[in-house]
Amino acid sequence: MTLGKNTDILIVGLGLIGGSYADGLTKGGYKVRAITADKGDIDYAVGRGMITGGSDEVTADTVGTADIIIFALYPHIFVEWIEKYGHLIKPGAVITDVTGVKSAIVDKVQSILPDGVEFIAAHPMAGREVSGVKNASADIFRAANYIVVPTERNTDGAIEICKQLGHILGFKDISVLSPEEHDEMVAFLSQLTHCIAVTLMCCNQSEGLERYTGDSFRDLTRIARINDEMWSELFLLNRDKLLYEMEQFSQAFSQLRCYMIKGDREGIRQMMRTSAERRRLFDKID
Amino acid sequence: MTLGKNTDILIVGLGLIGGSYADGLTKGGYKVRAITADKGDIDYAVGRGMITGGSDEVTADTVGTADIIIFALYPHIFVEWIEKYGHLIKPGAVITDVTGVKSAIVDKVQSILPDGVEFIAAHPMAGREVSGVKNASADIFRAANYIVVPTERNTDGAIEICKQLGHILGFKDISVLSPEEHDEMVAFLSQLTHCIAVTLMCCNQSEGLERYTGDSFRDLTRIARINDEMWSELFLLNRDKLLYEMEQFSQAFSQLRCYMIKGDREGIRQMMRTSAERRRLFDKID
Repeated sequence: MTLGKNTDILIVGLGLIGGSYADGLTKGGYKVRAITADKGDIDYAVGRGMITGGSDEVTADTVGTADIIIFALYPHIFVEWIEKYGHLIKPGAVITDVTGVKSAIVDKVQSILPDGVEFIAAHPMAGREVSGVKNASADIFRAANYIVVPTERNTDGAIEICKQLGHILGFKDISVLSPEEHDEMVAFLSQLTHCIAVTLMCCNQSEGLERYTGDSFRDLTRIARINDEMWSELFLLNRDKLLYEMEQFSQAFSQLRCYMIKGDREGIRQMMRTSAERRRLFDKID
Repeated sequence: MTLGKNTDILIVGLGLIGGSYADGLTKGGYKVRAITADKGDIDYAVGRGMITGGSDEVTADTVGTADIIIFALYPHIFVEWIEKYGHLIKPGAVITDVTGVKSAIVDKVQSILPDGVEFIAAHPMAGREVSGVKNASADIFRAANYIVVPTERNTDGAIEICKQLGHILGFKDISVLSPEEHDEMVAFLSQLTHCIAVTLMCCNQSEGLERYTGDSFRDLTRIARINDEMWSELFLLNRDKLLYEMEQFSQAFSQLRCYMIKGDREGIRQMMRTSAERRRLFDKID
């Protein structure tokens, strides 16, 4: 399997991310179809020229011709889909995903797929606080990072195709991590930050404070408009690693509180200097 | 005292905020002079047309003619300045400030000022991660909030002048809070968020993670490039209120950890729903 202009690409799940994949691949000159629960979303995407066609039903016809299938579903729905319809995928096809946790998903999916179908996992580190295909656009990938997450079962060819998708979609940086490394990274950079934003909104009544706030509170809580169904699933699928990061954060926060209680200005300043120095690395590529 | 085009306005401390005041007031058609430690900053601001003139020395001449003086200094330097030079301010003058804490400052300054000089406190809720007059611009006030912080010693006239400054500078919302209310609000919305951002940078080695990160980590740590001298002072001047907010945050964070440990999906989702609902109020005026 190589990726060319005649490759039959199927997206399963035409929401914000699936729709943005469709938008980017179509703009890149590729042929994209979609399967999604709501026929209205298919009609919308066809009308916008994001896909050539699609269906709200999973049939042998719609699935069986696809060379590449991109699953943009919640983790448990992805696994259930493979259990139910995996046999419809043709041998030689390559499938990939956009799921935010990997260890709990990748081995499982790789082990239940029919022979000759290869699953290469990927994680586009992009999103918005709104959902659905109507908010989809490949623009969300432009300054974003894309992680390919192979296991020892994956072939070089499939890894290459997965990277190629990232390039076509316009990601800024394309990296490779193992499922374990990926989940550690995501627990810290993404899941812990969502825990903090949610906690910040829950720890105090904030109603009426809109007219006093500066930008810092808005920045720290942008992601607090959270999809509770998806994120609770992601958190629990990565529970041990997230709990470890929460513990690390709690300890450092207690240290800062301790300095505050003691009035230890130098201790506070030392933490602030470490913070400022480390943050500079993230500025370079802002 | 009323504020008119001939009012002699003096800014003490020509950094990011003092410089941005100078920029906004000059663009509004007012005459602005400045006193600041570095003569180069005066020359720069004169060259840019941000001020008509100024000095790196505090003399009876430079201070004594001013009708309005705006202090844009670190809190303790502001108090020391008043102790040392307050007698140079002419009776009838109104002075204001930009300090991020109020209870620890306002009573003190009001009690040591000479008779006939009125101090009306204000807090422009705006800033940047860079400092100095060369980064100053009244643009930083455009979408920002401005808080006037009077005590029972203040006159309606001075409160009105202080609000007028906020209008001229182009703030979006102008509010009035007591020093106590102000410091509670700032402990939660501003100081706690800075504590969290600093903690997030300190709790884990993040070097090399730039190429994997999504936007959430960048958003939560934008303010982690912190000025340790200024913020450690602000934290300690508002210690009890900040410690209370840190405690509230810790409790809510522990609650979320507890749900995670127990695998209580519904508990997690309930916190997320509360979070999403409350955050919507802040979106309206984003």
